[in-house]
Amino acid sequence: MKAEIINIGDELLIGQVVNTNASWMASELSNAGIKVIQITGIADDEVQIKKSLDQAKERADVILISGGLGPTKDDITKKTLAEYFHSQLIFHKPTYENVKKIFAARNFNVSEVNKQQALVPDKCIPLLNVNGTAPGMWFEDNGKVIVSMPGVPFEMQALLKEQVIPMLQKKYKMEAIVNKTIMTTGWGESYLAEKIKDWEDSLPDYIKLAYLPQPGIVRLRLSAHGDNKEKLKNEIDILIERLKKIIPKVIYGFDEISLEEVIGELLKEKNKIAGTAESCTGGYLSHLITSIPGSSAYFKGGIISYANEIKIKQLDVKEQSLIKYGAVSRQVVEEMAIGARKNLGVDYAMAISGIAGPDGGTDEKPVGTTWIALAGPAGVKSKIFHFGEHRGRNIRRAALAALNMLRITLTAI
Amino acid sequence: MKAEIINIGDELLIGQVVNTNASWMASELSNAGIKVIQITGIADDEVQIKKSLDQAKERADVILISGGLGPTKDDITKKTLAEYFHSQLIFHKPTYENVKKIFAARNFNVSEVNKQQALVPDKCIPLLNVNGTAPGMWFEDNGKVIVSMPGVPFEMQALLKEQVIPMLQKKYKMEAIVNKTIMTTGWGESYLAEKIKDWEDSLPDYIKLAYLPQPGIVRLRLSAHGDNKEKLKNEIDILIERLKKIIPKVIYGFDEISLEEVIGELLKEKNKIAGTAESCTGGYLSHLITSIPGSSAYFKGGIISYANEIKIKQLDVKEQSLIKYGAVSRQVVEEMAIGARKNLGVDYAMAISGIAGPDGGTDEKPVGTTWIALAGPAGVKSKIFHFGEHRGRNIRRAALAALNMLRITLTAI
Repeated sequence: MKAEIINIGDELLIGQVVNTNASWMASELSNAGIKVIQITGIADDEVQIKKSLDQAKERADVILISGGLGPTKDDITKKTLAEYFHSQLIFHKPTYENVKKIFAARNFNVSEVNKQQALVPDKCIPLLNVNGTAPGMWFEDNGKVIVSMPGVPFEMQALLKEQVIPMLQKKYKMEAIVNKTIMTTGWGESYLAEKIKDWEDSLPDYIKLAYLPQPGIVRLRLSAHGDNKEKLKNEIDILIERLKKIIPKVIYGFDEISLEEVIGELLKEKNKIAGTAESCTGGYLSHLITSIPGSSAYFKGGIISYANEIKIKQLDVKEQSLIKYGAVSRQVVEEMAIGARKNLGVDYAMAISGIAGPDGGTDEKPVGTTWIALAGPAGVKSKIFHFGEHRGRNIRRAALAALNMLRITLTAI
Repeated sequence: MKAEIINIGDELLIGQVVNTNASWMASELSNAGIKVIQITGIADDEVQIKKSLDQAKERADVILISGGLGPTKDDITKKTLAEYFHSQLIFHKPTYENVKKIFAARNFNVSEVNKQQALVPDKCIPLLNVNGTAPGMWFEDNGKVIVSMPGVPFEMQALLKEQVIPMLQKKYKMEAIVNKTIMTTGWGESYLAEKIKDWEDSLPDYIKLAYLPQPGIVRLRLSAHGDNKEKLKNEIDILIERLKKIIPKVIYGFDEISLEEVIGELLKEKNKIAGTAESCTGGYLSHLITSIPGSSAYFKGGIISYANEIKIKQLDVKEQSLIKYGAVSRQVVEEMAIGARKNLGVDYAMAISGIAGPDGGTDEKPVGTTWIALAGPAGVKSKIFHFGEHRGRNIRRAALAALNMLRITLTAI
């Protein structure tokens, strides 16, 4: 089955917003086994909407539209679709009840312009949108399915995931698809591929593996196709158990979980408190940890010791160590971790000292050279990393490497 | 003049990458006065590329293509364009010299597959791409212009900005356009609009104003259209001088500069050193400051005092103040700033204490309530802010508000 995505909105064509709806929709549809053949971005323009529908119907079986369903005058998708399908706008009570409910939650009465949101073309199946006032609309026309959804990302996402894709799977009697994403950190894509080659080669032809690398993280996506969903799930579970034995330390979680979330769960589970001492990452490691709601339960704080003076004063780093070994050294990063653990009064302190760049590199310690230490009840350990030349990516990779060091230690206790 | 953007790449249609090229191109073209009427994303597929070109030519005068120009087999755009324009691939010496130069910089010889990059269709004008091996290609066909560029963002960006747009402006004898973006912070969009209403109403009809809001920042974009570029520039300069008098503290810079860059410039200029004390922002303020290369010249470090114990121990906050007023209070945030200034040994210390959410709010201090203080040579000052309910946005807005407080103070000395 072939699908086309049509995103409607003037803001796309002047480049005011990045079309993240398109990639999200394409990813969800692909994962559900629906092949996207074109993504079309057009303005809130009646003629162009109709023309795009004509052309999309020549290419695709299913057309998924987002945008242009707001209550204001510039949003014309609903009116245009009604005309296109020779349809009358009729009052849809469940949609009106939903609009009322949304306004009641904000202590507002439904305004006149928002009452219009409850009008839907009589030739569509309205799809209830509990997150907003604009309903989704499912049309069928000469064997083609055309679905219109709001452009607000979380409204569109809930509709597509919970209603549209299941309805498509039912209508087209699609084969079952099971996706599972394995989150890994610590190894680069090619090294990882080498290590899991035998496992990858053993995959049956109905289970595909995709490598999806990001700085510091490689996601492995398994997609299984077949008749029996439960059977596929079981097979994937078995494959993952086998993979865990091959690369036990590298897998940190599943299905888009972040390393900072995993750390939070581990610290809570083990009833431990963490702290940080950051030089080159300048607060980014602490920011990741505290971006998780409720992190105050397991994170006490940190020292950002950008200047050597702060390393000495706040983290008890010895001046002699700085002079003898330099700030980016095993000695200094270990002293930072030990000092942070003591001065912050935490169970585990992560410390990072490196050269983020673009300046500050030397032949001996080029940009990207980074020492990371972890001090805990069992003592301190440290490791050197050689990241790249890009400041932003070096900062991110260093913070992830520190979180990973803590993760491995916490998992072992 | 109407333009269509065609982005080619399988990765777009499975949602593996967000199509940031499309929004960047659309924004640049709009700013240059070229109206984008459609953005089309398609796979590396010969039939579809040709079909999309046929349809785009019906709609647009100019078609700008990105992607599919790599040296590997899956990239077929060049071959397809050569066929489409009944063109032969011929060897292009300047492109080959460029490929050689790029490989020499990496200490590699040009591989056989990369030699192919120097072949271009004989009916195009090749556009030299100094950032990569794939040249741009400018075709003209029945009065339409079709330009193919690589998909690598910075290669495409340099080609579009430095070669393609100037060539289009010349060919179509387009009117002059001058854009200037005014960066503001501290006021919301509607309050700002109210305050500058008279100024906005006084704009001549050939100078348009757009409000582009982001959390904590509102960009004002002026676009002037006319015959004489120098005259338009002068007019915009005069308008900006007038605006500066109306909202002197709100404008922090121009043309997409960040607040952290401005702070860096100001601290260097005034020869002052800054530090931080962060509670609810958990390191994000320090991260912003240290994301700027060379920030070690003016940033010494910070204390992330997520727990009250750290506020007391590292920042000399009085236990009595915490008990009496709570952590989110004027007293505590001022003590944090004073303590950070002293203990970090800096000229200026920013301190933030607030309720980022989603939990921790009370009736008296709901989620979003945030105190920010600045301690400097002239003493300490503080201010309360009421942000919203979204944790991530609250963290960002608090950090920007702290930077802005420092900016206003530094500007005045």
